[in-house]
Amino acid sequence: MEVQDKLNAVQRYVDAFETADINIIKELYATDATVEDPVGSDIHNGIDAIVAFYEGALSAGIKLQLSGTPRCAGSEVAFPFQVKGPGMSIDVIDVFKFNAEGKVVSMRAFWGPENMAS
Amino acid sequence: MEVQDKLNAVQRYVDAFETADINIIKELYATDATVEDPVGSDIHNGIDAIVAFYEGALSAGIKLQLSGTPRCAGSEVAFPFQVKGPGMSIDVIDVFKFNAEGKVVSMRAFWGPENMAS
Repeated sequence: MEVQDKLNAVQRYVDAFETADINIIKELYATDATVEDPVGSDIHNGIDAIVAFYEGALSAGIKLQLSGTPRCAGSEVAFPFQVKGPGMSIDVIDVFKFNAEGKVVSMRAFWGPENMAS
Repeated sequence: MEVQDKLNAVQRYVDAFETADINIIKELYATDATVEDPVGSDIHNGIDAIVAFYEGALSAGIKLQLSGTPRCAGSEVAFPFQVKGPGMSIDVIDVFKFNAEGKVVSMRAFWGPENMAS
């Protein structure tokens, strides 16, 4: 998988929130993917659980804004961004791991209460 | 492990480079720790291999500068920074995973050629 493909996946992820388009989420993730958001919490297993998780976020009008360059390494990419919602923002770092087909098989989101601002 | 302990570990890591003090590295890492820098490359296994790896970096005069807030989650912390050396800089995101004793058991560094600037 080329660096540009990983960068495109990050941009598509931002686009999914910008346009509140759950279909982009369905395209990005592998059917057997896992999402751990935040790291340390219960894992969403499989595309159905993942879609349900994102539908909540997308319908809440949350947007993402990259706050630094994505870092591609191995079959992964880590990228820093701000989650922006009504009257709040959170500094987050996500890590995507890709499978051989270029789908995200693992997403882990690093953030805690101290990364939230009103 | 408290959030503040994780933030202190990140600061100590920055200090290790600032003062070129390998003893800080020895204190931070568990004896059975692993370092993958960059992600996808051969892993440095155990404190002896890790110390050898850092001795090279410290003697080269490399410094670290945080470029965003560390994100603490679960037993881990992810933090964005710039590696600064003579005539170069690299945008990196490191992920530390801690054991029950508060030592780093796993470090994974996310960066690639496209994150380097001269």
